Amino acid sequence: MARPIKTIGVMTSGGDSPGMNAAIRAVARACAYYDVRCIGFYRGYQGMIEGDYTVMTARSVRNIISRGGTILKSARSEAFRTKEGRQKAAENLKKIGVDAMVLIGGDGTFKGGKIFNEEYNIPIIGVPGTIDNDIAGTNFTIGYDTALNTVVEAIDKIRDTASSHDRLFFVEVMGRDAGFIALNSGVGAGAEEILIPEEDLGLERLLESLKRSRRSGKSSSIVVVSEGDKIGKNVYELADYVTENLPNYDVRVTVLGHMQRGGSPSCFDRTLASRLCVRAVELLLDGEKNVMVGLLNNEITKTDFDKGLREDHSINKELLRISDILST
Amino acid sequence: MARPIKTIGVMTSGGDSPGMNAAIRAVARACAYYDVRCIGFYRGYQGMIEGDYTVMTARSVRNIISRGGTILKSARSEAFRTKEGRQKAAENLKKIGVDAMVLIGGDGTFKGGKIFNEEYNIPIIGVPGTIDNDIAGTNFTIGYDTALNTVVEAIDKIRDTASSHDRLFFVEVMGRDAGFIALNSGVGAGAEEILIPEEDLGLERLLESLKRSRRSGKSSSIVVVSEGDKIGKNVYELADYVTENLPNYDVRVTVLGHMQRGGSPSCFDRTLASRLCVRAVELLLDGEKNVMVGLLNNEITKTDFDKGLREDHSINKELLRISDILST
Amino acid sequence: MARPIKTIGVMTSGGDSPGMNAAIRAVARACAYYDVRCIGFYRGYQGMIEGDYTVMTARSVRNIISRGGTILKSARSEAFRTKEGRQKAAENLKKIGVDAMVLIGGDGTFKGGKIFNEEYNIPIIGVPGTIDNDIAGTNFTIGYDTALNTVVEAIDKIRDTASSHDRLFFVEVMGRDAGFIALNSGVGAGAEEILIPEEDLGLERLLESLKRSRRSGKSSSIVVVSEGDKIGKNVYELADYVTENLPNYDVRVTVLGHMQRGGSPSCFDRTLASRLCVRAVELLLDGEKNVMVGLLNNEITKTDFDKGLREDHSINKELLRISDILST
Amino acid sequence: MARPIKTIGVMTSGGDSPGMNAAIRAVARACAYYDVRCIGFYRGYQGMIEGDYTVMTARSVRNIISRGGTILKSARSEAFRTKEGRQKAAENLKKIGVDAMVLIGGDGTFKGGKIFNEEYNIPIIGVPGTIDNDIAGTNFTIGYDTALNTVVEAIDKIRDTASSHDRLFFVEVMGRDAGFIALNSGVGAGAEEILIPEEDLGLERLLESLKRSRRSGKSSSIVVVSEGDKIGKNVYELADYVTENLPNYDVRVTVLGHMQRGGSPSCFDRTLASRLCVRAVELLLDGEKNVMVGLLNNEITKTDFDKGLREDHSINKELLRISDILST
Repeated sequence: MARPIKTIGVMTSGGDSPGMNAAIRAVARACAYYDVRCIGFYRGYQGMIEGDYTVMTARSVRNIISRGGTILKSARSEAFRTKEGRQKAAENLKKIGVDAMVLIGGDGTFKGGKIFNEEYNIPIIGVPGTIDNDIAGTNFTIGYDTALNTVVEAIDKIRDTASSHDRLFFVEVMGRDAGFIALNSGVGAGAEEILIPEEDLGLERLLESLKRSRRSGKSSSIVVVSEGDKIGKNVYELADYVTENLPNYDVRVTVLGHMQRGGSPSCFDRTLASRLCVRAVELLLDGEKNVMVGLLNNEITKTDFDKGLREDHSINKELLRISDILST
Repeated sequence: MARPIKTIGVMTSGGDSPGMNAAIRAVARACAYYDVRCIGFYRGYQGMIEGDYTVMTARSVRNIISRGGTILKSARSEAFRTKEGRQKAAENLKKIGVDAMVLIGGDGTFKGGKIFNEEYNIPIIGVPGTIDNDIAGTNFTIGYDTALNTVVEAIDKIRDTASSHDRLFFVEVMGRDAGFIALNSGVGAGAEEILIPEEDLGLERLLESLKRSRRSGKSSSIVVVSEGDKIGKNVYELADYVTENLPNYDVRVTVLGHMQRGGSPSCFDRTLASRLCVRAVELLLDGEKNVMVGLLNNEITKTDFDKGLREDHSINKELLRISDILST
Repeated sequence: MARPIKTIGVMTSGGDSPGMNAAIRAVARACAYYDVRCIGFYRGYQGMIEGDYTVMTARSVRNIISRGGTILKSARSEAFRTKEGRQKAAENLKKIGVDAMVLIGGDGTFKGGKIFNEEYNIPIIGVPGTIDNDIAGTNFTIGYDTALNTVVEAIDKIRDTASSHDRLFFVEVMGRDAGFIALNSGVGAGAEEILIPEEDLGLERLLESLKRSRRSGKSSSIVVVSEGDKIGKNVYELADYVTENLPNYDVRVTVLGHMQRGGSPSCFDRTLASRLCVRAVELLLDGEKNVMVGLLNNEITKTDFDKGLREDHSINKELLRISDILST
Repeated sequence: MARPIKTIGVMTSGGDSPGMNAAIRAVARACAYYDVRCIGFYRGYQGMIEGDYTVMTARSVRNIISRGGTILKSARSEAFRTKEGRQKAAENLKKIGVDAMVLIGGDGTFKGGKIFNEEYNIPIIGVPGTIDNDIAGTNFTIGYDTALNTVVEAIDKIRDTASSHDRLFFVEVMGRDAGFIALNSGVGAGAEEILIPEEDLGLERLLESLKRSRRSGKSSSIVVVSEGDKIGKNVYELADYVTENLPNYDVRVTVLGHMQRGGSPSCFDRTLASRLCVRAVELLLDGEKNVMVGLLNNEITKTDFDKGLREDHSINKELLRISDILST
């Protein structure tokens, strides 16, 4: 049988993450290597719907491996949730001659891809690209490692000034539904306390912990708070509550915000993106479809979309215990 | 005449800044070199009042040149504003045998030092250490250069995600009374607009500028806002105002906060701190007092306290014009 | 049975690596948490032989998690290879009351520990700390991830100047016996070719690869060379050979050297060190001995010393193929 | 009189330096602002000779302010040293319609520009872009500040491992004819000794200094060596000499090499490049020519080419004294 796939499309969708460019480069270069045409769609599903794309050659991804963001831009597409939107996209793929797609993004991206495949039977491979690490079927998502380093470097700086002034800092990090960033960066930054969506510490225990920390001789403290923490207060309310109840503490708040999404990717994220996307292209050429590629036990693996979307990728609560021991 | 100064005290006061440790090191090493005893007081004037100090040797400042924060800690002292507080401090200096002081800090620190000298005739040299660069008598304060790099690196990251999603970001940086950080980091980060306390752009002109920027083909924008901007709205209100008036813009806010005070100092700040503090010790040993050391035209100079405190260190408004041209 | 272990010793040995301080901190804090005394020996086995040590409390490891190097210093000990040396060490442990040891280091460190245990029956847990990643029983060693980022950041800088001047750079990285650093940093930096000890590319194929790269439109190239590359020439000889055979190439050499061992550890290395060392202490308290802790499939595991030392931790040659595809 | 200058050319020449892209951007944006056409020539004088150029718009320099290297590439042109080469270049400028040139580079670049202007009367403004800082008429050249930070960050890493192993490191930095980088980075990195072309310390005094350093309690040392140091030995010979004469020292060498030329420019270099190049364009439009723009006492100034090339930009030897005091 002649190899059916002559053109592969690629796009990035959802919140951008460092390493997406390394991923795009790997798709384009693998296509060039296997003599397959590569089409890059802009702004995720939106570019597929609008027919907004560019032909990608081995040279058009030159020197992007080290850059944050995504040269294909990213977006969340409302139109793709509609039948009309998806039909438009399918028509465009047909017109351009795209035989299969590599989708770089998160959970929502893959869900869209699954429906699209069911409706139009276009082979799809998902590549997990998000700083949140909240995807089953892979130990690490592209961008997560870089985001952790960005957070830890920022908290190191905050620690300098916290120590100099004997202050208590609440630092809010990204992670609306999952505490991966907070938990791992909190351990990495040596935080005195970590608040995550998956575990409600409770206000009383937070106060107790801070008081114990002070008694043990610490004059400054860092509390890392996940955006989606379940304690029932946002980070400013938390700070106010602590200020009221621990009047001798000099409390400050920093919300790290969108800088967590940017920056030159770490070696880990670049290598991960490269390995995942070469495999994604090879799987498509081998006739595979509707799977997500991932890294499990240091090997590139594939997971059925259904399975990946059904299963939970839960945080390692052991790290809460580690954090507790290390903040002694 | 026998050299009268046998012991020099040093402290850091006010908001901490990167390079304060390099400054402390230079005082301690210069004292060791000239065979003078060196006493480090903790938490600025507060340590002088409480008699909280440590003897500093050439070895006790080992490997601190690269570290952010201040090993002597810093604080703002209410007690030192009272006559009783200053008397306590003077008594402690006498008891410990401190003949002269090097004060590392900002405007407020120097004002306190001037009064203290008038009351107790203890020779004092001021060293400008603050990220705000708002001190007359020096082109650069210790910590300012590092803070600019911290801000620019953060905005580079934000630019990655702004470009990927075609967003407009408002980024608030430090500088309650002076726009140095906003203006210079804004030019360095290639910001589309810069809002500073010294110049009221006005809401109308801000909207005009953003619209012009979009028309010229820019799909994303960064507006750098100084904490103390005079436009009459805080950065969140600004963002709301723009969202209402430019409904097609996807607006986001990041407040960089205290990470701007920390981090390993740049080479510039380390060298500046080293040069200023060696000179401060040498001036004291030469019988000089009540001056601030500074860097003017790349040379270390001294400025009378009165003059330094009276004069204005104004920002270079030429940079606003440069920013305007470069955001074409 | 009463818990027999009341004092745990810790040391760092062999080449230093970023994260060793995070590891020391985790041992000291875990000991404090479990109410066990902690003794830190200086300069690895040498400090055990000389009785050069310090008592470590939870506070004595304050703020070291972010620092490169090792506060306990490291060394290679000739004396410990002798029976007399090890006897001296055993006597010192007995005198000080050390019941068990956590050894942070590489292969050589563990071999010494195994012999020591056989001779004196002191329980030992090994923690893999080396930038080389050449240890079986763990996917990652402490310091490896940071070293990769250091190398990739350096090559990014070299790429800037290589691109500006259309040059070919040979960049030598660490790894005398194993190509882990070269292989992974090479993929991460987007190197055009990677030379490692495990695979002899051959001079002819190197020339072919460089010529093909030029033909494909690349005007500059980076070749990453592992210290211990088997091609039979050192990096300077390689550069000379290429200069002779490809006269139109402007060839340069950079040997990255010891900066690869230093620097603030990445979040990954800090978290890894923290998890491994808490487990090491807990295993000792549980009566375990003569195992190495490691990270396999994202879980902390233990490996028998014998097994770890016998087995090969081989590089992932798949990455060579990936590199080949991506340098298209 | 109608404004005669309708098209301005720009190029980068000589060794590349961080901030050259910020400079190119400022020329292109200033041209756009003043409604002047902007032509970018590739590879310095070579592109002028070959007619290798691109039209630059405000959008074509988008997002390059943060990038190292130069998008216009750089080279040293032998052909431009010949009368024929310069004639070719002049013909090309005429053909393309270039009325004036902004030259970004160093000493050699400006010398070529001066001759070119004398022969063909094309107005030229020089912008000092080199990491070496060896140009009269400016306190700082574009790229120098970034190179200092790169060197200091590398030495900080080397310091980690030097301290951990009690070693003596010789670190060679760039600067064939001038010791600016060595001297300032040496002070910034807290080096124990600094060897520069402008001052021959002598081997005996180097040994004395190292011995004194050891006696004062330092167990590790860093010696920063400028490429063009006059001590009469290269850095490896120096290390051998010290190893022979101080047998108890564990000596290592690192040559930092070309990574010093790359990297994202510091805020200082970006702002400097922006200010200098806006001025360069404005001066040309005002009818000025044959001057170099520079930064003196924090103000942008212009210096006659003749004067700048004749005068010496000497290093601040005061820093050697500072270094001596601080390595106490």
